[in-house]
Amino acid sequence: MSTPADFNDIEEGLDFQPRFDASGLVTCVATDAGTGEVLMVAHMNEEALRKTIASGDAWYFSRSRNALWRKGETSGHTQRVVEMRMDCDQDAIWIRVEQHGAACHTGRHSCFYRKIDAADGDTRLSFVDADRQFDPNKVYRK
Amino acid sequence: MSTPADFNDIEEGLDFQPRFDASGLVTCVATDAGTGEVLMVAHMNEEALRKTIASGDAWYFSRSRNALWRKGETSGHTQRVVEMRMDCDQDAIWIRVEQHGAACHTGRHSCFYRKIDAADGDTRLSFVDADRQFDPNKVYRK
Repeated sequence: MSTPADFNDIEEGLDFQPRFDASGLVTCVATDAGTGEVLMVAHMNEEALRKTIASGDAWYFSRSRNALWRKGETSGHTQRVVEMRMDCDQDAIWIRVEQHGAACHTGRHSCFYRKIDAADGDTRLSFVDADRQFDPNKVYRK
Repeated sequence: MSTPADFNDIEEGLDFQPRFDASGLVTCVATDAGTGEVLMVAHMNEEALRKTIASGDAWYFSRSRNALWRKGETSGHTQRVVEMRMDCDQDAIWIRVEQHGAACHTGRHSCFYRKIDAADGDTRLSFVDADRQFDPNKVYRK
């Protein structure tokens, strides 16, 4: 069977071909499998992606610490992957997870605990769903 | 009232202080306000962010086309913003939107129309929720 000349294998094919950026990373969005809430936006390098697929636990690559990192390895707040999806151009991944405890290092369930509000030409943030589930000073022993 | 010495204004403050990367961009995740489905991961520069806040329609910055872009300006498939949220370190934004038509340029409702499956050490993609809502060859007049 011939393939049309304009067939885009990245977008329409079923080969797993993650397209890492110049830093070797893809963007990963984690949502709560129960509520649909966006928990965090982070990055995976090839090894983090491979370990996530193999183990079913979320691994990331921290740009600030320049290190591979299993989510929850310090805090115990791990993410169990329920489903992984790839986007059209294969440079972003969406994982639906069972979040144990809180996803955010500040102690909140989600990193997105502030709304953006615009009023009278002024843009401000306001807290929403911002209750802490743990005290980061205790968990991370700062 | 004094501020504790370790107070992190980016994480705990209510000032809107988006932290653009070296390319002048923040990551933006758009989800369907009705279903919670992740529709797309894209980028905003300062102007796209400002226009989104001011208009209530989603604007992005295309890295491949190096251009500001109102979502749906060619296809008609606009995104009406229901809520905007900022993440802990202010370099990622989550918008919940009413998606008119399909979010993906391939014609699908979401860009995440393929699952990642691992079996016998082999990682493959499979289609899921991959029905096209429009024919991109007609809409974009390729």
